[in-house]
Amino acid sequence: MATSTILSDLGTEIIIPICAVVGILFSLFQWYLVSQVKLSPEKPAADGKNGFTEALIEEEEGINDHTVVRKCAEIQNAISEGATSFLFTEYQYVGVFMVIFAVLIFVFLGSVEGFSTSSKVCTYDTTKMCKPALMTAVFSTVSFLLGAITSVISGFLGMKIATYANARTTLEARKGVGKAFIVAFRSGAVMGFLLAANGLLVLYITINLFKIYYGDDWEGLFESITGYGLGGSSMALFGRVGGGIYTKAADVGADLVGKVERNIPEDDPRNPAVIADNVGDNVGDIAGMGSDLFGSYAESSCAALVVASISSFGTTHDFTSMMYPLIVSSVGILVCLITTLFATDILEVKTVKQIEPSLKNQLIISTVLMTIGIAIVSWIALPSSFTIFNFGAQKVVKNWQLFLCVGVGLWAGLIIGFVTEYYTSNAYSPVQDVADSCRTGAATNVIFGLALGYKSVIIPIFAIAISIFVSFSFATMYGVAVAALGMLSTIATGLAIDAYGPISDNAGGIAEMAGMSHRIRERTDALDAAGNTTAAIGKGFAIGSAALVSLALFGAFVSRAEITTVDVLTPKVFIGLLVGAMLPYWFSAMTMKSVGKAALKMVEEVRRQFNTIPGLMEGTAKPDYATCVKISTDASIKEMIPPGALVMLTPLIVGIFFGVETLSGVLAGSLVSGVQIAISASNTGGAWDNAKKYIEAGVSEHAKSLGPKGSDPHKAAVIGDTVGDPLKDTSGPSLNILIKLMAVESLVFAPFFATHGGLLFKLF
Amino acid sequence: MATSTILSDLGTEIIIPICAVVGILFSLFQWYLVSQVKLSPEKPAADGKNGFTEALIEEEEGINDHTVVRKCAEIQNAISEGATSFLFTEYQYVGVFMVIFAVLIFVFLGSVEGFSTSSKVCTYDTTKMCKPALMTAVFSTVSFLLGAITSVISGFLGMKIATYANARTTLEARKGVGKAFIVAFRSGAVMGFLLAANGLLVLYITINLFKIYYGDDWEGLFESITGYGLGGSSMALFGRVGGGIYTKAADVGADLVGKVERNIPEDDPRNPAVIADNVGDNVGDIAGMGSDLFGSYAESSCAALVVASISSFGTTHDFTSMMYPLIVSSVGILVCLITTLFATDILEVKTVKQIEPSLKNQLIISTVLMTIGIAIVSWIALPSSFTIFNFGAQKVVKNWQLFLCVGVGLWAGLIIGFVTEYYTSNAYSPVQDVADSCRTGAATNVIFGLALGYKSVIIPIFAIAISIFVSFSFATMYGVAVAALGMLSTIATGLAIDAYGPISDNAGGIAEMAGMSHRIRERTDALDAAGNTTAAIGKGFAIGSAALVSLALFGAFVSRAEITTVDVLTPKVFIGLLVGAMLPYWFSAMTMKSVGKAALKMVEEVRRQFNTIPGLMEGTAKPDYATCVKISTDASIKEMIPPGALVMLTPLIVGIFFGVETLSGVLAGSLVSGVQIAISASNTGGAWDNAKKYIEAGVSEHAKSLGPKGSDPHKAAVIGDTVGDPLKDTSGPSLNILIKLMAVESLVFAPFFATHGGLLFKLF
Repeated sequence: MATSTILSDLGTEIIIPICAVVGILFSLFQWYLVSQVKLSPEKPAADGKNGFTEALIEEEEGINDHTVVRKCAEIQNAISEGATSFLFTEYQYVGVFMVIFAVLIFVFLGSVEGFSTSSKVCTYDTTKMCKPALMTAVFSTVSFLLGAITSVISGFLGMKIATYANARTTLEARKGVGKAFIVAFRSGAVMGFLLAANGLLVLYITINLFKIYYGDDWEGLFESITGYGLGGSSMALFGRVGGGIYTKAADVGADLVGKVERNIPEDDPRNPAVIADNVGDNVGDIAGMGSDLFGSYAESSCAALVVASISSFGTTHDFTSMMYPLIVSSVGILVCLITTLFATDILEVKTVKQIEPSLKNQLIISTVLMTIGIAIVSWIALPSSFTIFNFGAQKVVKNWQLFLCVGVGLWAGLIIGFVTEYYTSNAYSPVQDVADSCRTGAATNVIFGLALGYKSVIIPIFAIAISIFVSFSFATMYGVAVAALGMLSTIATGLAIDAYGPISDNAGGIAEMAGMSHRIRERTDALDAAGNTTAAIGKGFAIGSAALVSLALFGAFVSRAEITTVDVLTPKVFIGLLVGAMLPYWFSAMTMKSVGKAALKMVEEVRRQFNTIPGLMEGTAKPDYATCVKISTDASIKEMIPPGALVMLTPLIVGIFFGVETLSGVLAGSLVSGVQIAISASNTGGAWDNAKKYIEAGVSEHAKSLGPKGSDPHKAAVIGDTVGDPLKDTSGPSLNILIKLMAVESLVFAPFFATHGGLLFKLF
Repeated sequence: MATSTILSDLGTEIIIPICAVVGILFSLFQWYLVSQVKLSPEKPAADGKNGFTEALIEEEEGINDHTVVRKCAEIQNAISEGATSFLFTEYQYVGVFMVIFAVLIFVFLGSVEGFSTSSKVCTYDTTKMCKPALMTAVFSTVSFLLGAITSVISGFLGMKIATYANARTTLEARKGVGKAFIVAFRSGAVMGFLLAANGLLVLYITINLFKIYYGDDWEGLFESITGYGLGGSSMALFGRVGGGIYTKAADVGADLVGKVERNIPEDDPRNPAVIADNVGDNVGDIAGMGSDLFGSYAESSCAALVVASISSFGTTHDFTSMMYPLIVSSVGILVCLITTLFATDILEVKTVKQIEPSLKNQLIISTVLMTIGIAIVSWIALPSSFTIFNFGAQKVVKNWQLFLCVGVGLWAGLIIGFVTEYYTSNAYSPVQDVADSCRTGAATNVIFGLALGYKSVIIPIFAIAISIFVSFSFATMYGVAVAALGMLSTIATGLAIDAYGPISDNAGGIAEMAGMSHRIRERTDALDAAGNTTAAIGKGFAIGSAALVSLALFGAFVSRAEITTVDVLTPKVFIGLLVGAMLPYWFSAMTMKSVGKAALKMVEEVRRQFNTIPGLMEGTAKPDYATCVKISTDASIKEMIPPGALVMLTPLIVGIFFGVETLSGVLAGSLVSGVQIAISASNTGGAWDNAKKYIEAGVSEHAKSLGPKGSDPHKAAVIGDTVGDPLKDTSGPSLNILIKLMAVESLVFAPFFATHGGLLFKLF
C-alpha cells in the first residue's frame, strides 16, 4: 500500500524538514530586516536628511531631536526587561507544575498494566504484540516535556521579537504609516514563521526518534506522541491566563486612574502603570497567543496522528500517508511565505486606508494558495482510497474527500475572519451602532456591546458546524482533525497579522512616553485600530480551530477509551454535558474576578503615587514603574493557579470518579458552551475598543458628533472599553485552552481511565 | 393492577377537583382581604385616628391629607388601564399567531397518516388499534388552544390583582412595613393560587373530556394532551418577551433621562415615562412570569403523562397512578395554603429586618411540608412496583424511588433558591463586593457583576445535575418530569413571594408620584429590595424547573420520534448540539438589542418632553404619559416577533429538513447552554439592582462610605443597574421559554417529523 502514494517515504522525510528549515530561515531574514532600523541616533548625512529619502516628521516640524531616539531605546529596554523578568518568574512556577505533572503522567500511565515491563497485546489489532504500557508512559512523559518546552520557547521568542520591534515601529512611523506597518508586520511574521516551523520540526524529529524504539508498533508510538499536544497546551494555559491577567490588571488600572480620574492621555509617562501596561501586551497578547496557537497546532496534529495510527495508514505502515498532517503544515509554511511577500513587497501599504485591506488580502491570498497546496498534497501524499477508524469500525475514505475536509476547515477560518472583522472593525455599522449608543451613556453602550458579541456568534458557529459536518461525514474524527489543521495551515500568516496589533499598540505607547509628535501617535493609533480588528480575527481563528481540535481530540479520546457511543439519553452523559457547559462560566468568573481584583490593587498604587510623589502630575518627578510591574506580576502568578487547577483537575477527577462516559459529556458540554462565550467575549471587547477609537479618531461626521476625547459619549465609550478588556484578553481567549486542554488531557489519560476510572459508579 | 393503589380511581376523581376548587376559593378569600383596604378617603372616626389603632405617618407628621388617597387611586387607575390596554393589544397579535399555529398543528399532525379517518395500529403496543392520527390532530389543536387561553387568563388575572394591590400596599405602608408587606404578599398569593388551581383544573377537565372520545386509547389521549403544554408555553413566550421589552424599555428610558441627566428621583411624577415604567412591572414581571410558570407546570405535567401513557400505568389503564402528577400538584396547593398562613397570620412581619427571613421561611416550610405530602401521595397513589418506558424497553421502578425523584426536584429548588438569595441579596458579601467595586467606577462594577453572575451558576447547575442523575437513574424521563413537578409543586408559594416584589415596586412608585412622605418610600423601598431577591429566586425556580421540564420533554420527544440513542459521536447530532448551544446567544442578542433600541426611542421622547413642555421640571405642567406608554407598547409588539419566530421556527425547520437526530442535538445543546446564561443573567441583574439599593439605603458603615445618592459610586451603581435591567427581566427569563418551548413543540410535532422529517438527508 505504501507504494500507492505518488510521494515516496524518502520524499516525505526530505520535504518536511526542508520546509521547516526554510520557515526558520525566512523568519531570521525578516528579523534581520527589522534590525536594519537602528535604535541609535544616526549621524546626519550630507543631504541633511538622515540618509532617508523622505523627511522625518521631526524634521518637517523642525524639532529633529536625537534624544528622542535614545528615549525610545530606553523605554523599549524597560518594556523588554519587564516582560523577560515576568516570563522567567512565570516559567519558574510553571516549571514546578511541569515536573509534578510529568510525574503524574508517568505514574498514571505506568499503572495501567501495573508497571509491567513485558510486551502486551495491542489494543486495536489484537493479533499483534505492542510495547509495554510502562514504556508508553515514559515516552508520553518525554513528549509532554518536549511539547511544554517548545511552547515556552515559542511564546518567549515571540515576546523577544515584539519587544525588539516596538520602538523600531515608532521610529519608522516618523517616515510614514506604511514603513511603520511593514516593521510591525515583519516582526509579526518572524514570530509566525518561527512558531510554525519550530512546532513542525520538533514534532517531526520526535516522531523519528521515538520510531527507533517503537519500530512497527505505531499504535504505541503515536499514543505517546499525544503528550506533545498536552505539553504544548498546558503551557499555553498558564501563558494565556497569567499573561491575560497581567496585561489587563495593568491596562484597567492605568486607565481607571489615568484617563478617568486624572484626565491624562493613554500611555502618558506620568502614569506609574504605563510600563506594566506595555509589558502586558507582550506577555499576554504575544507570548500567550503564541503558546495558544502552538498548542492548537500540536494538538490537532496529535489528534490526526493518533486516529491515523489505528486506521489503514497505521496498520499498513504507510509512512507518507501517516505524515499527511505534517506535510500539509509544511506546505502551509511555503504558502505563508509567498503570502507575506504580498504585504511586504508586492502590494506595499502607503496610507492608513490601505492597512485593513492589506491585512484582509493576506487572509484571502493565503487561503486561495493553500487550497491549491492542499489539493496537491492530497493528490501526492495519499492513496486514492484508504480506511479511517470510526469508533470500532473502519470507514472507507477517498483522497478527494480528505482534500475537502482540510479545505472546509481552511475556508471556515476565512469566513470566521471576515465575520469577526465585520463585527469589530469601526468601518462597519455594528461598531458604529455601539459608538452611537454612547450618546445615552455607558449603560446603553454596555447593553449594545453585549448584544453585538452575542450576535457575532451566529455565523462562525454555522461555519464551524458545516466544517464539522462535512469533515466528520467524510472521514470521522480524522476528518475533523485535518479540518482543524486546514484552519491552522496558514498559522504563520495568521500570527503575523495578529501579532502586529500589540506591537503597534506598544509603538504608540513608546511614542507617547518619548514625548514624540502627536502626528506619530495618530499613525500608530491607526495601526492599532486595525490591530484590534486583527487581534479579534486572530482570536476568531484560535477559537474556531480550538473547537475543531477539541472535537477531534474528543473523538480520539473516545476511541482510545474504547466506548462506541456517547448517548445523551443516559444520565451519566447528560449530567456531564450540563456540568461541562457550566465550566466555561466558572472559569470566566475566576479570571474576570482576578483581573478586577488585581486592577483594584493597581488603582490603589497608582493613586498612592499620584498623591504622594510631589511633582508627578507636573512631569517633574518620575513615577515608580517597578512597583506597578510587581503588582501585575504577583497578581497574575497568584491568580492563574485556581483557574489552572480547575482546567487541569476536572478531567482527572471526572475520569477517576465518574468514568469515561461522564467525562465525554463534560468534554462535549464545555466545547459547545465555551466556544460561544469565547467568540462573543472577544468580539464584544474588540468592538468596544474600536467604538472608543472611532470616537477618538473622529473621521466621519457621525464620529465627530460623538467626540472629541473627553466628551460624555467618549467617557461612556471608555467604560465599555475597560469592561471589554478582561473579556477580550483574559477570559475569552483562555476558554480556547479550557476546551482543548481538557480534551487532550483526557486523551493522554484515556488508557488509565478506561482501566481504573469510574470509581464512584463501580462502588455503588 | 388498578387495585394495587391504596387510593381508588373514584378517590382520585374527587381529590383533584376538590383541591383545585379549594385553591381557587382560598385565592378569592385573599383577594377579599386585600379589597378591605379602601381606596377612598375614610371618614374620620371619633378618636380622630381614622379608625386605625396606630397612627398613620401623615398623622404623625401632621399632614393628614385625604387628597393623597385620591391621588393614589388615580395613579393606580392609570397603571391598570395602561397594563390592560397593552395586554389587549398583545393578545390581539398573539391571537392571530394562535390561530395560524393551530392550523399548522392540525395540518402537520393530520398529514402523518394522510388525513385518514380510519383507526391505526398503535405506535408502542402494536397488538392494539388506536384512534386515527387525524383525530389526534384535532384534539391536539383543541388542547393547544385550551393551554394558550389558560395561560393568557393566568397572566391577565395576575396583572389585574397586582394593579389592584399596588396602591393598597402604598396606603398600608402608612401604617407600617408589616401591614404593607401583608397586602403585597396576599396579592401575590391570589395570583399564585389562581394560577396553580386553574392550571390543574383545566388540565383535569380536559383529560376527562378527551377520555370520552379516546376511551381505552390512552396513547392517543395523552399524546393529544401535550398540545396543552405547547399552548401554555407559546403564550408565555410572547408574554415574557413582549412584557420584558415593554418593562425594560420604559425603565431604562426613564432612568437614563430622569436619574442620570435630570437628577430627579426614580418614579418622579415629572418623568413622562414613569407610568409606562410602572405598567411594565405588571405586564412583564407579573403577567409574563405567571404565563412562564404556568407553561412550566403544564409542560412538566404533559411530559410526565405522555411517558406514563406508554408505561405500565398506561398499558394497564391504572387511572390513579396515571394521575400521580396531578395528585402531587393537588397536594401542593394544600401545602402552599398552610404555608401562606405562616406569613400572613402565624408569624407576622413587623419590621424591615423580618421581611427576608419571613420569605425564606416560606420556602423552607413549603418544602418540608411538601416532602411529607409527596411521601403520602407516592404511598397511596402508586403501586409498590411498576414499569416505566425507557427508550424502547421498560424499566422496573418502585414507589419509594418515585418519591425520591419528586423529592430531589423539590429540594433542588430550595437549594437554587438559597444560592440565588446569597448571590443577589445585599445582606451578603457578593453583592457588597459589587457595591464596593463602584468606588473605581462603572467599569469595575460591570466586571464584578458579570463575574458574580457567572459564579452563581455553579451550585444551581450541580443541584440540577444531581436531581437529573437521581431521577433519571431511578425512573428515566418520567423521573425527570416528576422531579420538575416536584420543584413546581410549591408554585403557589413561589409565585406569591415572587409577585410581591413588583407589587412593592409599584407601591413605591405610587408613593413617589402621589407626593407621599419619604418615610413611606423608605418602607416600600425596603420591601422592594427584598423583592429583587425574591424575583431572582423566582427566576431561579423558573429556570431550574425549565431545565428539568425541557429534559423531560426532550425525552418524551425522543421516545415519540422512535429513536433509541442520541449519539454525540455522529455528525448529525453534534452539529445540532453546537448550533443549539448558540441559539440562546442569538435570542439574547435580539432581545437585548430590542430593549436598547426601544429605550433609545423612549429617551428621545422623554428628553423632547422635558425640552418642549414648559414648567415640566418645575412641576407646574403635567407630562404626556400616554405617548411613552405608546412607545413601549409599539416597540414591544414589533420587537417580540423576530425572537418569537426564532424559537417557534427552529424546531420546525430543523425537524423538517434535518430530521429528529439533529433536532435532538439542538434541544440538548440549547438546554445545557441556555440554562447557564439564564441563571447568570438574572443573578447579575439582581445583584446590580441590589448593589445600588445597598448604597442608597446606607445601612452599614461600608454602605455609607459609598453613598449617598448622587455620589460617584452611586452613579456607577446606577449604570450597572441599568445594564442589568434587560439581562434580568428580558433576555434572561425569556430563555426559560426558549428551551422549554422548543422541546414541547418538537414533542407535539414528533409524529410528523418521524414520518416526514429529515428531507435534506433523504435527498442527499
